[in-house]
Amino acid sequence: MMSLSQLHPFDPLTPEDITVCANILRNAIPGATLRFKRIDVLEPVKGETVPYLEAERSGHALPPKPARLLFSYFHRMDTGVFHKAVVNVNGQIVYIKELPKDIQGPADIDELIEVEEACMKHPAVLAEIEKMQLPPGFKVCNDPWIYGTDSDSETRRLAQCYMYIIEVDHPESNHYSLPCTFSPVFDQITKELVRMDYLPTGADGQVQSTQPWKQVKGVQYAHDLLDEPIRTDLKPYVVQQPEGPSYTINGREVNWQKWKFRVGFNNRDGLVLYNVTFDGRQTFYRLSMCEMTVPYGDPRKPFHRKQAFDAGDVGFGITANSLALGCDCLGHIAYFDGYRTDSKGNPVLLKSVICMHEQDNGLQHKHTNYRNNVATVVRNRELVVQMICTVSNYEYILAWVFDQAGNIEHEVRATGILSTMPIDNHEGVKVPWGTNVGPGVMAANHQHLFSLRIDPAVDGHNNTVFYEDSVALPVDAELNPFGVGYVSRPTVLSKAGYADLSVQNGRVFKIRNDSSINPISLKPVAYKLHAAPSQMLLMDPSSFSSKRAAFAQHAIWVTRYQDDELYAAGEFTNQSRVDTGLSVWAARDDNTENTDVVLWHTFGLTHNPRPEDFPVMPCERISVMLKPDGFFTKNPALDVPASTQKFNRSTLHEEKQTAPCCAPKL
Amino acid sequence: MMSLSQLHPFDPLTPEDITVCANILRNAIPGATLRFKRIDVLEPVKGETVPYLEAERSGHALPPKPARLLFSYFHRMDTGVFHKAVVNVNGQIVYIKELPKDIQGPADIDELIEVEEACMKHPAVLAEIEKMQLPPGFKVCNDPWIYGTDSDSETRRLAQCYMYIIEVDHPESNHYSLPCTFSPVFDQITKELVRMDYLPTGADGQVQSTQPWKQVKGVQYAHDLLDEPIRTDLKPYVVQQPEGPSYTINGREVNWQKWKFRVGFNNRDGLVLYNVTFDGRQTFYRLSMCEMTVPYGDPRKPFHRKQAFDAGDVGFGITANSLALGCDCLGHIAYFDGYRTDSKGNPVLLKSVICMHEQDNGLQHKHTNYRNNVATVVRNRELVVQMICTVSNYEYILAWVFDQAGNIEHEVRATGILSTMPIDNHEGVKVPWGTNVGPGVMAANHQHLFSLRIDPAVDGHNNTVFYEDSVALPVDAELNPFGVGYVSRPTVLSKAGYADLSVQNGRVFKIRNDSSINPISLKPVAYKLHAAPSQMLLMDPSSFSSKRAAFAQHAIWVTRYQDDELYAAGEFTNQSRVDTGLSVWAARDDNTENTDVVLWHTFGLTHNPRPEDFPVMPCERISVMLKPDGFFTKNPALDVPASTQKFNRSTLHEEKQTAPCCAPKL
Repeated sequence: MMSLSQLHPFDPLTPEDITVCANILRNAIPGATLRFKRIDVLEPVKGETVPYLEAERSGHALPPKPARLLFSYFHRMDTGVFHKAVVNVNGQIVYIKELPKDIQGPADIDELIEVEEACMKHPAVLAEIEKMQLPPGFKVCNDPWIYGTDSDSETRRLAQCYMYIIEVDHPESNHYSLPCTFSPVFDQITKELVRMDYLPTGADGQVQSTQPWKQVKGVQYAHDLLDEPIRTDLKPYVVQQPEGPSYTINGREVNWQKWKFRVGFNNRDGLVLYNVTFDGRQTFYRLSMCEMTVPYGDPRKPFHRKQAFDAGDVGFGITANSLALGCDCLGHIAYFDGYRTDSKGNPVLLKSVICMHEQDNGLQHKHTNYRNNVATVVRNRELVVQMICTVSNYEYILAWVFDQAGNIEHEVRATGILSTMPIDNHEGVKVPWGTNVGPGVMAANHQHLFSLRIDPAVDGHNNTVFYEDSVALPVDAELNPFGVGYVSRPTVLSKAGYADLSVQNGRVFKIRNDSSINPISLKPVAYKLHAAPSQMLLMDPSSFSSKRAAFAQHAIWVTRYQDDELYAAGEFTNQSRVDTGLSVWAARDDNTENTDVVLWHTFGLTHNPRPEDFPVMPCERISVMLKPDGFFTKNPALDVPASTQKFNRSTLHEEKQTAPCCAPKL
Repeated sequence: MMSLSQLHPFDPLTPEDITVCANILRNAIPGATLRFKRIDVLEPVKGETVPYLEAERSGHALPPKPARLLFSYFHRMDTGVFHKAVVNVNGQIVYIKELPKDIQGPADIDELIEVEEACMKHPAVLAEIEKMQLPPGFKVCNDPWIYGTDSDSETRRLAQCYMYIIEVDHPESNHYSLPCTFSPVFDQITKELVRMDYLPTGADGQVQSTQPWKQVKGVQYAHDLLDEPIRTDLKPYVVQQPEGPSYTINGREVNWQKWKFRVGFNNRDGLVLYNVTFDGRQTFYRLSMCEMTVPYGDPRKPFHRKQAFDAGDVGFGITANSLALGCDCLGHIAYFDGYRTDSKGNPVLLKSVICMHEQDNGLQHKHTNYRNNVATVVRNRELVVQMICTVSNYEYILAWVFDQAGNIEHEVRATGILSTMPIDNHEGVKVPWGTNVGPGVMAANHQHLFSLRIDPAVDGHNNTVFYEDSVALPVDAELNPFGVGYVSRPTVLSKAGYADLSVQNGRVFKIRNDSSINPISLKPVAYKLHAAPSQMLLMDPSSFSSKRAAFAQHAIWVTRYQDDELYAAGEFTNQSRVDTGLSVWAARDDNTENTDVVLWHTFGLTHNPRPEDFPVMPCERISVMLKPDGFFTKNPALDVPASTQKFNRSTLHEEKQTAPCCAPKL
């Protein structure tokens, strides 16, 4: 048993935290039933945390820990009022406040199940199903969808249920291949049917009443359900670490190849990295994928409301998969757990939601001296810390990858199943905003726009973000007579705000510490952001989709650090009408030079589906890197042992190769 | 022994080819000594090759093979005239032609060694070395550099020798850390000293005579020469394939996971892939990294001439490393050899210059049915075909990576040692066009601009290149009332020419076959190019650097196929003054719609060095992908077996994790 005093400030939510918080709040509001949407640890106050970390790092006596606070979002079931509360784990209430009616908290898992069940029982829904005259054995299911906004006055908590046909009784039957043409909207609190929407199936917005279903065969992905045989020529590929892994774990602290960091977890961000140091030097205070929005480009009603904020509306933490040995990773795997509350305030274990393992990623560096063919070859060992989130149909694989040369990569892989719509493609219908991906089924164009929140501590907390363009020198008889010269031109982001990438200018964003000068380069130490150039949000500036996701309009945002400013689109995104995050904080005109700053990078995918993305999508990969740039005086991986056959034990392929070693018969 | 008739049209140069070609040419020019710069197989005529491949693919009777022709670049030593010849392996001369005096052939390895030796013996060079008054035991060496152009009238074949100090007698002593301040220019034919250049060491172009060397310590990379200890906490990571690899090899033909292709090799491109098919369907006729230019951004004399074309001036093939088991790759490795001629016409084996192995690259696809938590997980097995080229100081790792979902990636990793210049940084000197990377040593800004030549055969040879932009629909009460709609807008490249990428518009280039319609999407089958958005050439349009490398001014070029048009900057790049490649061919105004087209993609790195890139550079990675886009009717990797522990045999990490599983003591 670990006492409270043993918990590190960055340790995640414990089951006891959940019980304590729920009890405090129930006691504070006697007589009312509370429906808990979220209980989690409040980020520790940075001003109190930094001295603690600094003492840890320097080995000095530890100051008092920052207070461990918990927060909760909950509904009072008697009044229907939505609340936020903050409590101290020792039992004190910091505050309980009622939130305005137009603020919706995130989805909770119990709620989604309840809505799904209510939908399947509702007579109006059953009547629509009846009209389809499905063959015997066919069933219908629904995915309750986040109800993106199209009104400034809607204050009900709504879910749009997209309905699908299950053609076979199998746990992985791909209902997304067989969408129905009706879509009921439910009030999530009262479970009342608000409206029955009908979905367009032609090339325009026209809808019609539910018709008998024209039977088509679904496109299945489960191996049991494929018509084609499974490949038999794939041979096993086994990763062995006979001496164990190169990492050590102490609680949530990881040590690996000069890196040290803490593996945090919360219900919203999921995986968070804290206090990342390399060889004892500070690099980043906190790193997380803080938000993502998925707006769809089908202009037709009701699809215009398809805009999920997967972190803010639901949560990468609560949707993180329990990972399984030998499936999601290869090699020597460590797992980390998390917890969430259920709607009644009971702890739910989120087992093995983060995994960690080493991987080989080709060469780290090589040089051959051509005079004597003596080569130095060093392989690139990496450490991957990963979660995989299932948000209804889609999957996101979100991984932090550390290497031995001071680089930190954030890799996103999008997989899972496209969100689908019905279409009359047997009649040759195509639409310009989507792709037909199977019989009777279309997948609309959409974007995935992520916000990576980078809270730097490059040799300390006073940092400056700037960018450098590579620009040609003008031709000049004295300085540049041959017209080949080019230089880096720096621009400091001295005020909070945003900036755009520029591939054309070779623009690179960097975070520097003006108080720490590299003795070799004679410039301030820095880390650079190897950004992912991406198309920004395509929706019209007048649209709710755009107003809610201001963060998705620019690739780079810089703000001055403030506690509680963690999420790019603001604290509450579910049915939000306007951004309450980055665009607000960036407008404060704060000084951001040589102070505690936060860098936010928006990047993502414009995903116009391919038939190949269905019925389950090959991973689409996008990545961002943080790379030292004059942080070290030389390559920090020089001391990595050489790559040798004795260490690596590879196998020579001896298959007979007949050509081209023999003589032509002339 | 394999007879000539057994050689496949795409089989690379054999030692017998070299002997045959050299003998034919010597017999044709009796009395003269010939210096061979290159002997290689001439690409078979496509019009004769396609029917042969088609018969192979369909299993029909094979037509006659296309003629196997060889070509050679050589100097007549008596006249000094440079020639090109083409001969038939059966002994006939197709042609021998004299080339104009202003055309220089590529470097040959014997020549580089001869220049290096001539330089080290020359009295003027020895006199300069003497002036440095080096400590006992210190030596000097030189790298002869390709002599980039600054004159329309220079017809001598020149080399600029950059001189360096070797501080320790070790085969991997990093002389690049200790550059000298003088740089002799030699005539490569006569071995005469043409001029002694002196290098600027301050913040401008001023030079001075050679001074006594101010001793500094070089920055070493060899493990023997490091001051710091080698890391001892990296544990072995072993890849085992107990049942062998999933590939089979027949001659140069590879079969792997529905892919079939031929591994070609020539002295210039190095690795070439031919006749790439997936599940029997044609995708690409020929794929190769056909050129790369590295212009440097230091405007000062003589650095303005630093512009190498590593494929055209030297050759990725002849600089490809002999790869070693357990060093360059991990797992079950197959190797392919190549051959080159020496300057006398003798064959030289290029042992194990291409390697091939499988690797695991995380997940291929995953979906979890959230209702029952049943997951389909399929891992992403890849096949890597790779070469590593050492071009003096730099290394390039050039790999083709196939996956199971129809994707082909071309990955470039740049590593090796920066090209360096002397600098007085002990006096605080910095320059805006480079970075100080060690005591007395600076590395200038430069670019690496690659040209990937993609000769498609998407379901056949008549293809069309087009691009699609993702563009917002205008807000419209009828069609787009909520302002969220966006569509793909196609533009066909119907004439030979160039185009630019546009991140802002989400522009995607595709290759389609209008005669083959996908029955699901109802659109022509296509492959798309997942391009690498890169800053294009920075040098002034008036500069030789720019005029020689027109290909590097635009990201996309489309030409109509013609035999012999293989290299983006033209056939002869060494000391070239103007592009004779893409900009010429693209100006022909050929129709490129629904015909045999070639797509060329220019991409690369603007590399403004970091101190971390020295003394040997952590790999900088950039990649391009070819992805099916409506080529298949669904995900072609659905039939890949699931990822299971039984197959993968991973290990659970059991280290005790103390938090956060225990109760706080309240």
